[in-house]
Amino acid sequence: MFAHRIKNLAESPVREILKVIDRPGMISFAGGLPAAKCFPTFDYASLSSRHMQYGPSEGDDKLREQVAQSLCKRGLQVESNQVLILSGSQQGIDLVAKLFVEPGVKVAVEVPTYLAALQAFDLFGAEYRGYSIGEPGIIDSGPGDSKISGTRLTYTIPTFQNPTGHCYSSEQRKTLAAACDATGSILFEDDPYRDLVYSDCDRTPVCAYMQEVNWIYQGSFSKSYAPGLRLGYLACSKTLFPQLVRLKQAADLHSCRLSQQLISALLETHDDRNLIGFYQKRRDNFQEVLQDTFTHLADWKRPDGGLFFWLKLKPAFAMDTRLLLDQSIAQGVAFMPGEAFYPAGTTPQSTLRLNFSHSTPELVRSGLEVLAGIIETAAAGRVQQSNSV
Amino acid sequence: MFAHRIKNLAESPVREILKVIDRPGMISFAGGLPAAKCFPTFDYASLSSRHMQYGPSEGDDKLREQVAQSLCKRGLQVESNQVLILSGSQQGIDLVAKLFVEPGVKVAVEVPTYLAALQAFDLFGAEYRGYSIGEPGIIDSGPGDSKISGTRLTYTIPTFQNPTGHCYSSEQRKTLAAACDATGSILFEDDPYRDLVYSDCDRTPVCAYMQEVNWIYQGSFSKSYAPGLRLGYLACSKTLFPQLVRLKQAADLHSCRLSQQLISALLETHDDRNLIGFYQKRRDNFQEVLQDTFTHLADWKRPDGGLFFWLKLKPAFAMDTRLLLDQSIAQGVAFMPGEAFYPAGTTPQSTLRLNFSHSTPELVRSGLEVLAGIIETAAAGRVQQSNSV
Repeated sequence: MFAHRIKNLAESPVREILKVIDRPGMISFAGGLPAAKCFPTFDYASLSSRHMQYGPSEGDDKLREQVAQSLCKRGLQVESNQVLILSGSQQGIDLVAKLFVEPGVKVAVEVPTYLAALQAFDLFGAEYRGYSIGEPGIIDSGPGDSKISGTRLTYTIPTFQNPTGHCYSSEQRKTLAAACDATGSILFEDDPYRDLVYSDCDRTPVCAYMQEVNWIYQGSFSKSYAPGLRLGYLACSKTLFPQLVRLKQAADLHSCRLSQQLISALLETHDDRNLIGFYQKRRDNFQEVLQDTFTHLADWKRPDGGLFFWLKLKPAFAMDTRLLLDQSIAQGVAFMPGEAFYPAGTTPQSTLRLNFSHSTPELVRSGLEVLAGIIETAAAGRVQQSNSV
Repeated sequence: MFAHRIKNLAESPVREILKVIDRPGMISFAGGLPAAKCFPTFDYASLSSRHMQYGPSEGDDKLREQVAQSLCKRGLQVESNQVLILSGSQQGIDLVAKLFVEPGVKVAVEVPTYLAALQAFDLFGAEYRGYSIGEPGIIDSGPGDSKISGTRLTYTIPTFQNPTGHCYSSEQRKTLAAACDATGSILFEDDPYRDLVYSDCDRTPVCAYMQEVNWIYQGSFSKSYAPGLRLGYLACSKTLFPQLVRLKQAADLHSCRLSQQLISALLETHDDRNLIGFYQKRRDNFQEVLQDTFTHLADWKRPDGGLFFWLKLKPAFAMDTRLLLDQSIAQGVAFMPGEAFYPAGTTPQSTLRLNFSHSTPELVRSGLEVLAGIIETAAAGRVQQSNSV
């Protein structure tokens, strides 16, 4: 009865977790939730009846112009007519998947990578070529003979990667762009975390280094502004723009114009230094509490930006972290099992993604203590069980 | 380079027209634009930081409950856990197309029908079985041997249909539901105009008559509230709900929470009698001006609800109305050529869809005079041309 693609439509843990985060008393290390107290003050007085009416699929002109200017400043030379406003950057993944992905198409992805990108690509029948980031390089043996050879699309989150927090070096950025140019794989760069930077890093868009092959770059207003507005944007090679606009129109006509106007007004005045200072303190506190509670349980690297710590359990505590989720939520703590970030069919990874931006320092300590206790108990039970066999 | 589906992604006239309607001085009979002066006053004070945060893919609980109650009142018995909030009802078409449509799948549609539904179905490779509405009946020879036999999905706009304005009778509603039940075709009912009613009509959802086969019913907040908020909803058979939620999540995670809260607050207090009275007057005025300016050019039926007049040019003026659009826009008048509402490959239909809700009476008269003049000139030029041959 359903289209064949629906067999690829797996239940997503994100969905389950988004449902519980609103519950009173829940400590959420799960979603990439910004801290509610950092949401800016929106200028509702700037809204007029104009913003209540239907608008262009491309997005409102002024906002497109503002985005183009911002992209130029970060090193990606685009004109406003290459900018498409999105109903959140998840929509960009849906549109790009529709444009390129069908059964048999190979997509290169970092392993691990953003789980809802996998979900969107899965729906259209993607096959994956996974490449590991950072070690020893993005591509295994040079641009000409890389893991991305034979792929139609390369999906990357180079800056404060989700879930690992890794930020590509300048060298890695250039190498990835060169590999795409050499192999003809279209580069799809997802860059939602770039503004949440706590150390000096090269954050030049990888797309800025592309010479020949087409590319799509996308960003989000969810992280520095507010996710409830559901607003993001993409910019792309001029040849891809007409198709992406048509796909956008067929998907939802255009994005919420209230959200567009509120963000457009804020872009004139918004200063995110307070937000960044606030998140940096939260990251530092999280690191400190992790050292107190998880040093014996897991290894991790303090991220230079973004919203997440990525933990790998030590061999003595290795387990499928998905099996801990129900119990953890029952005890009032939500986290993201690392398995969700790997293409289907991979073995349990003993990894967890923990968001540090959403919870207060007090909640961080009690939440991490609960989580550490659950892992210790699960490991102890396993030892006991194997002893009693 | 593109997925095969992109070859079905035609340029849409809606997109072009949405781009120009904001232009100062443009008289738009094109989109289904509500009158800006009827937009309600939104209660921005009801917004809190809660509505800035990520939320559930299904939509906010309170709004889902309000929608369910409203559907029960109109005769469709659903629970709130069957309600999915959408980023406008265009998104519902995208999700339903993803769920059911792939190359070779037959979709029954009214001919003519909503053009952006055709666009969304086209993308996924639909083949159409068109049925004419109203005359002599929805289905040609009874439920067992109808045009919808062999289709997986039947798409219908039974109430103030887009573009024709037709409202199905009680008998037609029951017949369509029986035909879907008899043939196993899933009923997809699109009902955005139902609240804009100017005469007494049966508006019971066709889905309310379904006995066995699955169904999806969707509605919009764009017409009675404001399209710029981009908010709609669907309700469906319980067995379809989990897949539609997952598709929604992969498409945009969830819909704008500001829009959800603003609509939710309004639903408590909103009285649309003023709006309906206002539109009814605009319809009556439009009818009057049409009689003055188009009686010699076209035939039409005054609609009992909705936003559109549907005109068929008389034989002496028969022409492909798409060819008039550029000139008309250049003269400051946007309209919708009827050809856009027919599946691709059909011959020019000599039809126009004219929206009566958006323009003031003064603009209606000058706009219709311009349009009538363009048609007369085009027909005269043709006569002259054929005389000179």
